[in-house]
Amino acid sequence: MKTKKIGIIVFMVFLTAMFFVGIKNIRISHAGPAEGLLPEQWWPSKWGADDEKGSFNLITPERVKASLKLVKTGKIYRLSKPYDNKIPLPWGRTYTLLIPGLPTLGNTPPFGKQGAVWNDEFIVGELGQVGTQYDGLGHTGMTDKNGVRRWYNGVAYQEKAWEHAHGLKKNGVEKQGPCITRGVLIDVAGLRGVKIMKKGELITVEDIETCIKKAGIAPIKEGDAVFFNTGWIEHWLDAKTFNSGCPGVSIEALKYLVKKNVSLVGADTWPALDPVPVEDPDYPFIAHCYLETVNGIGQLQNLDLRELAKDRVYEFLCVFVPVPFAGATGSPSDTIAIQ
Amino acid sequence: MKTKKIGIIVFMVFLTAMFFVGIKNIRISHAGPAEGLLPEQWWPSKWGADDEKGSFNLITPERVKASLKLVKTGKIYRLSKPYDNKIPLPWGRTYTLLIPGLPTLGNTPPFGKQGAVWNDEFIVGELGQVGTQYDGLGHTGMTDKNGVRRWYNGVAYQEKAWEHAHGLKKNGVEKQGPCITRGVLIDVAGLRGVKIMKKGELITVEDIETCIKKAGIAPIKEGDAVFFNTGWIEHWLDAKTFNSGCPGVSIEALKYLVKKNVSLVGADTWPALDPVPVEDPDYPFIAHCYLETVNGIGQLQNLDLRELAKDRVYEFLCVFVPVPFAGATGSPSDTIAIQ
Amino acid sequence: MKTKKIGIIVFMVFLTAMFFVGIKNIRISHAGPAEGLLPEQWWPSKWGADDEKGSFNLITPERVKASLKLVKTGKIYRLSKPYDNKIPLPWGRTYTLLIPGLPTLGNTPPFGKQGAVWNDEFIVGELGQVGTQYDGLGHTGMTDKNGVRRWYNGVAYQEKAWEHAHGLKKNGVEKQGPCITRGVLIDVAGLRGVKIMKKGELITVEDIETCIKKAGIAPIKEGDAVFFNTGWIEHWLDAKTFNSGCPGVSIEALKYLVKKNVSLVGADTWPALDPVPVEDPDYPFIAHCYLETVNGIGQLQNLDLRELAKDRVYEFLCVFVPVPFAGATGSPSDTIAIQ
Amino acid sequence: MKTKKIGIIVFMVFLTAMFFVGIKNIRISHAGPAEGLLPEQWWPSKWGADDEKGSFNLITPERVKASLKLVKTGKIYRLSKPYDNKIPLPWGRTYTLLIPGLPTLGNTPPFGKQGAVWNDEFIVGELGQVGTQYDGLGHTGMTDKNGVRRWYNGVAYQEKAWEHAHGLKKNGVEKQGPCITRGVLIDVAGLRGVKIMKKGELITVEDIETCIKKAGIAPIKEGDAVFFNTGWIEHWLDAKTFNSGCPGVSIEALKYLVKKNVSLVGADTWPALDPVPVEDPDYPFIAHCYLETVNGIGQLQNLDLRELAKDRVYEFLCVFVPVPFAGATGSPSDTIAIQ
Repeated sequence: MKTKKIGIIVFMVFLTAMFFVGIKNIRISHAGPAEGLLPEQWWPSKWGADDEKGSFNLITPERVKASLKLVKTGKIYRLSKPYDNKIPLPWGRTYTLLIPGLPTLGNTPPFGKQGAVWNDEFIVGELGQVGTQYDGLGHTGMTDKNGVRRWYNGVAYQEKAWEHAHGLKKNGVEKQGPCITRGVLIDVAGLRGVKIMKKGELITVEDIETCIKKAGIAPIKEGDAVFFNTGWIEHWLDAKTFNSGCPGVSIEALKYLVKKNVSLVGADTWPALDPVPVEDPDYPFIAHCYLETVNGIGQLQNLDLRELAKDRVYEFLCVFVPVPFAGATGSPSDTIAIQ
Repeated sequence: MKTKKIGIIVFMVFLTAMFFVGIKNIRISHAGPAEGLLPEQWWPSKWGADDEKGSFNLITPERVKASLKLVKTGKIYRLSKPYDNKIPLPWGRTYTLLIPGLPTLGNTPPFGKQGAVWNDEFIVGELGQVGTQYDGLGHTGMTDKNGVRRWYNGVAYQEKAWEHAHGLKKNGVEKQGPCITRGVLIDVAGLRGVKIMKKGELITVEDIETCIKKAGIAPIKEGDAVFFNTGWIEHWLDAKTFNSGCPGVSIEALKYLVKKNVSLVGADTWPALDPVPVEDPDYPFIAHCYLETVNGIGQLQNLDLRELAKDRVYEFLCVFVPVPFAGATGSPSDTIAIQ
Repeated sequence: MKTKKIGIIVFMVFLTAMFFVGIKNIRISHAGPAEGLLPEQWWPSKWGADDEKGSFNLITPERVKASLKLVKTGKIYRLSKPYDNKIPLPWGRTYTLLIPGLPTLGNTPPFGKQGAVWNDEFIVGELGQVGTQYDGLGHTGMTDKNGVRRWYNGVAYQEKAWEHAHGLKKNGVEKQGPCITRGVLIDVAGLRGVKIMKKGELITVEDIETCIKKAGIAPIKEGDAVFFNTGWIEHWLDAKTFNSGCPGVSIEALKYLVKKNVSLVGADTWPALDPVPVEDPDYPFIAHCYLETVNGIGQLQNLDLRELAKDRVYEFLCVFVPVPFAGATGSPSDTIAIQ
Repeated sequence: MKTKKIGIIVFMVFLTAMFFVGIKNIRISHAGPAEGLLPEQWWPSKWGADDEKGSFNLITPERVKASLKLVKTGKIYRLSKPYDNKIPLPWGRTYTLLIPGLPTLGNTPPFGKQGAVWNDEFIVGELGQVGTQYDGLGHTGMTDKNGVRRWYNGVAYQEKAWEHAHGLKKNGVEKQGPCITRGVLIDVAGLRGVKIMKKGELITVEDIETCIKKAGIAPIKEGDAVFFNTGWIEHWLDAKTFNSGCPGVSIEALKYLVKKNVSLVGADTWPALDPVPVEDPDYPFIAHCYLETVNGIGQLQNLDLRELAKDRVYEFLCVFVPVPFAGATGSPSDTIAIQ
């Protein structure tokens, strides 16, 4: 009896201590699934110390040529949302398009016998980071052991920050060029039989392999573009819900994709492959760091993959042509799939 | 003698009269080559009264599929200039890209054990109308006989201008979609044996046909994308010269292209197919009006076709994917050619 | 009994009819309080057919000199909210400020022996129409009986719209110049003994006169700047509530102010003197039309008058200096009051 | 003879050495006029370690009150150029104003019986650093002996750069508030009897004192705003000449102004008090560093002082009210002088 009482007291003291120490610091001997994934030094890249193309080095003429042969019907699927004022903007970002001086612009009246007139549009915003967009190699970085912030291939913009104010001199999206390759749709929402997967729900290696098997297509191979359909895009017009979280790819599956040497990944969520809440709280947004920073693999975000999924198009010609904004961290896109 | 004197006096009176009347009004019975080209009413379009796709209606699955078969080596040619502060901007247009808050953005310090950080870019400008860009169907219009300004398919933005202030509700570039088709390079500079053609120099039907013959490729046919290499892009870094004029396509050749039912045209100059000085001063920028407004054929401007010309790639898979900026008059591009 | 039944049936038929006709169209013979206030033709202005200064014509050297004599202590009150990302933006307007390329800008490293460096800021937005701002004479217009939209002094931008695309050629805010005059605070919230007045609550002539009497200051006179404290600014950080409505000045009091020949009016709400919901639903935003368009009296919106009210400063030197953005419809401001 | 030969050899060796060492490092015992002016550590400021107002601390109620008494006629002089597309923009900066969707904006047709309509303007640019503008305390910094870039009061934005990306958290122009004080015009162009002073021409202490003597006004005293008329603004519409250089204030005179404890300085040139070419090539733009960074005295640039000079208004009420753009490095202005 006495022992039991003492046990209870000890336990309550322990609970109280835990309360003061704080739950965060309790994971005494615990190491999350991301521990050890990110190398201390991730440069030089396997494409060479000066490389700024990352995984797009895989887009060789041979691979382009081979991927064109996948086309069966010639039907084009547009995988991007249009850029408009319904985009659910995170982090205080901006997107505005204006038509100046309708119905005609310029300091001249209609000219010529035909009364020629014209319109322009004026656009402002973080264009590589809003809407359906591509995260390039100058977007996400990490802090090295010396406290220096570094991006793909170890680039440290801070050292000569003045050079980069009007566009990154290294790793700008214009360096990467187009990505024409085999595209693969992993329809996880379809696999699970749900319209929309849940926040924080993880996509496993098994999910990927089951999807491919069910689709009856060849396994993921070097140079592929792999897109995940989670159904999350259904929340697009409800910015609050859309930005509140999303499903994503498990750390185990990130390793799998890197091992397969894919050229491009994408999903129908705002952080692409990263689930929110994250899998390992010690390493938030690890897909960004592991894919973009460490392995030079860019991510397409906010894709709309519903038509592809509906038509059961699991393998296709993927065409993504970034706008060559010099020194940009990303690019808007009208990524397309050709069946 | 007397008659001669009277003759001289009459002539001088005539000259004086001409001086007062002004040279512009002298072309009494003269009608320029563009007379009659532009119809008084150019709508409804042949694609239907509600159409907003214009010539991109020609990009059928069959045509896409056929065009993919043109690829021989899989080599990609990028035909766009990067977007940077060297763009020769006309008409007071603007292009600026900034990297806010280097070396990392947001109101958070580096986060997670990996010290994750990130950059954004902020871009402003008339993005569909600067750099290598595509003129869509909401860009150029004409004034009809009642004084109403109308664009492709007769759209009159003025009537409900308030609807269009944040993006054209009709003929926006996002309506058109990608253009994947057979591309043809007409290397007129090469044909003439010059590095750069002259201002106002005209490209004729004969030029086009000779180029095609020399290239040993099939004639221009329905749905083709036809690009003209004039060498003018050599002036790119000298904005004053670049914007001071350019060679262009003759009115006769414009008719030829429309008759051929092309889906897209382009050139390495700022007004695409329009020469400056113009061919018929009564109808300035007639290629814009005839192709875009009347026939729904968009134009790519400021293409860099030198690599294609150098490698003698006259026939290729043309891939142009406009950014779906909702209601924009055009789009920036990284148009590519695949050999 | 029968009559009663018939009566009920008739009444129900009437109710049903009303339901279908809609409540809006029932005001058969009703004319609201704004009927007849706005003239069919409001130009030329009393300051002349070419005038672009409106009520700022009243800011004569004599009036400036006289107003300076009101200063007792020299204490400055700043009446503007700072421009930041907390501004409750209406109508899809935008405000963004970025510091490009921290910690230093430009394409040069620190220069000179002192290692000189510098920052810039980059700002985008509808700057004359967000935050604490001044509505100038090019902002609000009305449609005349011929369907032509006209602004102060009858200016019709539509006629030569191309002239105005990069800034209004007439009635731009840069034409008006500074407003240095006697300022009067009408503390209606104080008078009512409330912290925040209600949506749609009206300020009457009696309110104005009682406030002045209680304040022990001279009556409103020609050239004065009159500011209304309603307490609405308390909602500033809650954009949804702030933009959902506000108290305002009654139509009767608008007439009173115009009769007094004031030079400037302002309030701590987003539509300045207009209450929302409006007083006469047939004439929404009538303060804008009556003051700005008809009488050339601009309005300061989103003022923060709490410090003035707290310190019982009811009469002061008003200093408002618009930024001379050529052709702008308004101006951001740091309007100040000097006690 | 031998000695001579040796002498020649020695001299040639010396020349060769000089060639390798580089001409820049030859000024062995030379120290320019700026040597020693800038302290190694310039913080904390005399206004306290947390101060962000700098010399505007001098704008006390008493000084405001006293300055109002200088007004004689009440005539207002506007000292700013309007913001338009004629601004001679340096360093690739931008200024654009657009009127979106003329003749009316928004997604509604004209509303109410009056057919109310409205215009907005959309403005983009480095607004605190183009046109007539005020350099605040977050604009110019220097590199300290440890290589850390620091601004007024030692602020180092680099340390937590992420905090400042959307506006400087320290030394933002909104912290400073209005400057209402005695203004003094030093008409050096008038003194020299020239319309425009020369590039690099220096204004001396003697010039300042002679101007004041000739003007018959009280000497420069604590809290004054001192503006220099050099005539350089005559080049305004010729951007190339305007930006190619300018006259400025000598280092000796900078010390004099700091000793006098002025609150504000300004001139009619783009770098305000700094001459170009600079006085001491070792310390370019030293007025920026010495006044702004070290002493917290902001500078007005691109003032138009011609009317003041023409009317011989040498002493006046200076009213400068910065726009409170939160975290901006400067502000556009419509600085005024009241006679």
